[in-house]
Amino acid sequence: MPTNITALLEPASVAVIGASADPRKIGGRPIDYLRRFGFPGRIIGVNPARREVQGTACVPDIAEAGAIDLAILATPLEGAEPAVLACLKAGVKGLILFTAGYAEVGEDGKKAQQRLADAAREAGAAMLGPNCLGTLNVHARLPATFATTLEGLDPRPGWFSYVGQSGALGAYWLEMAHNAGLGIAKWITVGNEAQVTGADAIAYLADDAQTRIIATYIEDIKAPDEFAAAAHEAKQAGKTIIAIKSGRSPAGSRAAAAHTASQAGEAGWYNDFLNECGVLQVSSITEMIDTARLAGAGERQFGAARIGMVTVSGGAGVLVCDTAADHGLAMAELTQSDRDALREFLPFYAAAANPVDVTGAVVSDRGLLPRAVEILGRTAGCDVILLFFGGMASIAGDLVAAARGATAYGKPVVVVWMAGPDAALAEITAAGIPVFTDIPPAVAAIARLRISSPSGVSS
Amino acid sequence: MPTNITALLEPASVAVIGASADPRKIGGRPIDYLRRFGFPGRIIGVNPARREVQGTACVPDIAEAGAIDLAILATPLEGAEPAVLACLKAGVKGLILFTAGYAEVGEDGKKAQQRLADAAREAGAAMLGPNCLGTLNVHARLPATFATTLEGLDPRPGWFSYVGQSGALGAYWLEMAHNAGLGIAKWITVGNEAQVTGADAIAYLADDAQTRIIATYIEDIKAPDEFAAAAHEAKQAGKTIIAIKSGRSPAGSRAAAAHTASQAGEAGWYNDFLNECGVLQVSSITEMIDTARLAGAGERQFGAARIGMVTVSGGAGVLVCDTAADHGLAMAELTQSDRDALREFLPFYAAAANPVDVTGAVVSDRGLLPRAVEILGRTAGCDVILLFFGGMASIAGDLVAAARGATAYGKPVVVVWMAGPDAALAEITAAGIPVFTDIPPAVAAIARLRISSPSGVSS
Repeated sequence: MPTNITALLEPASVAVIGASADPRKIGGRPIDYLRRFGFPGRIIGVNPARREVQGTACVPDIAEAGAIDLAILATPLEGAEPAVLACLKAGVKGLILFTAGYAEVGEDGKKAQQRLADAAREAGAAMLGPNCLGTLNVHARLPATFATTLEGLDPRPGWFSYVGQSGALGAYWLEMAHNAGLGIAKWITVGNEAQVTGADAIAYLADDAQTRIIATYIEDIKAPDEFAAAAHEAKQAGKTIIAIKSGRSPAGSRAAAAHTASQAGEAGWYNDFLNECGVLQVSSITEMIDTARLAGAGERQFGAARIGMVTVSGGAGVLVCDTAADHGLAMAELTQSDRDALREFLPFYAAAANPVDVTGAVVSDRGLLPRAVEILGRTAGCDVILLFFGGMASIAGDLVAAARGATAYGKPVVVVWMAGPDAALAEITAAGIPVFTDIPPAVAAIARLRISSPSGVSS
Repeated sequence: MPTNITALLEPASVAVIGASADPRKIGGRPIDYLRRFGFPGRIIGVNPARREVQGTACVPDIAEAGAIDLAILATPLEGAEPAVLACLKAGVKGLILFTAGYAEVGEDGKKAQQRLADAAREAGAAMLGPNCLGTLNVHARLPATFATTLEGLDPRPGWFSYVGQSGALGAYWLEMAHNAGLGIAKWITVGNEAQVTGADAIAYLADDAQTRIIATYIEDIKAPDEFAAAAHEAKQAGKTIIAIKSGRSPAGSRAAAAHTASQAGEAGWYNDFLNECGVLQVSSITEMIDTARLAGAGERQFGAARIGMVTVSGGAGVLVCDTAADHGLAMAELTQSDRDALREFLPFYAAAANPVDVTGAVVSDRGLLPRAVEILGRTAGCDVILLFFGGMASIAGDLVAAARGATAYGKPVVVVWMAGPDAALAEITAAGIPVFTDIPPAVAAIARLRISSPSGVSS
């Protein structure tokens, strides 16, 4: 059975152990963030020297805090163990331990974190970390973290969630996903996984109503059976898991051991295991986000992902064909009647074929683009509509309108706009249409989402 | 012998055939651009109906224009052939033919462009196109093009040059290279290559004092011997050629034929041929620019490209190790004395190893980063210094300073800054240091520049 981590993400009351009056300190940031995000539950500080920090009441000891669902421990190493034990004794059900210096530094640390994990388990509590950055539940306005990225970021509520052993990469994920226009559901950094594992977090997200896509950064999987069960549950719920498995190389594996005491293990085994679990593998956070942008909340069906392309550049059409072939993707085949229909309105020097090259004539003939899109939208052999634009700031409005119009045919629409105006790209993103600034990442993301996709690492 | 194309790029006088008073028309843009860029030579329009357009004097016929080095022909298809012949008769040495509708539309067009090419050759002139976007010589302030991208762009003079069959991709290249902080030397779009080929252009650039790196988009190579000779000449001059060979796939090959009547031919043959020519192959314009950013003007030596990394995130360190291994790159090995030196100042929970994980402690200890960088800078086993930053807007100034400081050791420096503040990224770019927003493109670009690099398509 996975450890129940509800208290780590849906607490009604939060205590910050080591609460600081300085909102830039580790013990001050969670209070600052909780207040700024408007966390609707009860917040209390634990600090023997203060009655109040940042306008939040403090008690000297967790035992005096009343009923607490979640304790955030911003405690130096020497004070961490007593603080954890005090929280457990006080009946706290969720603990987040930021403190580093455990399994990642050697045997003593490993034993110390094991003692804490055992104590939490015995108490029926869930302890996240140590050596983690905490959690974030955007819908519930709960930032249980000291991640500095939240200083300047106010994530939108959405359906994209993160689970990972690296808190720092999680922070970059958060900011990059937000900047890509995605909304966030839950964010769970598991650190050393002394008790709560990535599998526990995925099991929780499989059942979470807000989460549609789960991104996960994995150095090792400590409980493969639980991971497989959680992945299965997520899949049954129609959710996609996108994973970076790091430590695939000997050098990477050594670095992972130094980082979170992970045993990255045999790359081949992991690859097969993740494939069997139906997990999409990528090699970077950018690819994670690209894939999520395309997948959307799960409503987009890519089928065999045969690409129908309308392009303002013949050269770009050639490059898309090549890149698609590199990924084993087919271009959509047009019917004779599609070709006849194209012939009616394309410039005489443009081929009536897929890719449909509307050429630079698109600047003077505003009807070209929507008419070409309509043919791809209606023909049965096309699964995905890819629109290629380049530059053309002077008709950016028409191009944005064509991208919006392309969504009317019930097929996924992907835009590649090289050297495009920032404002137009932002408009397309705001319309929920994934837009890329060059061809390879767009085609790679399409390839990951095709139904028959072999789900090995693709990049 | 390659066709001499000097007149296409270094003319003292330019005539625009079909000169238009409207600066948005094909016959009006070159005049608008030439004036706006401050072309210092003589400009004259040819227009039977006007004495003047856009403040530029016009004559009814090229025969009345005086001695002209370069004619830009913005002529509809039906008038193109007489206009070319008139220019040749008037002794013009360089002709740029924008007009489309030749070999790319069928046999008749192929014959028509052959007639023009033969006439130019007999006259000892160089004709660029047809179906091209012209040329740009930034140092000489010569924009001999109607590319709309120049509406809002004022390229900096530099050492990066482009040759390609696709004008549109060339335009995106121009804008993307500029936005990446690179300066431009020459830009030559060869279109259908009826007479002047990409090989002629590369031969010219091999000998061009401004050009250090040549980017080329190739659908086919019509004269392999001349291409090989030009590539050899460029290499002898210490210049790097970075190529996209498009039409590698069957679908791409068909699309290329429709685009510029190219016979993209056998992908394997091209791959071997380009490798033999010492040409670096990439699969996108972004990769072209990434590679050029790293290579710089040729002063940076990557050697075996063993990566020494300083990182603020352990997870990012693991990912760099994995990505390096994917590209066959080694991480730098530290000596015992390097490790001892690291041990002296790194936090106790950080491993004294490469990647050097300075951890989040970098926020409070400003000396950590420069001290770690110095060890990589001085150790013999490290060829390239890779700095990984993430977020950390609050200490962006320190991180930028560390990147600048890292250049003091005579080794190439590459920065990856995920979720970094735009202004800080711009500062690093302005300092001539290549900066990336995720790991894979940075490591891929390093791999392309290692000395022992097998130069097949890498992405």
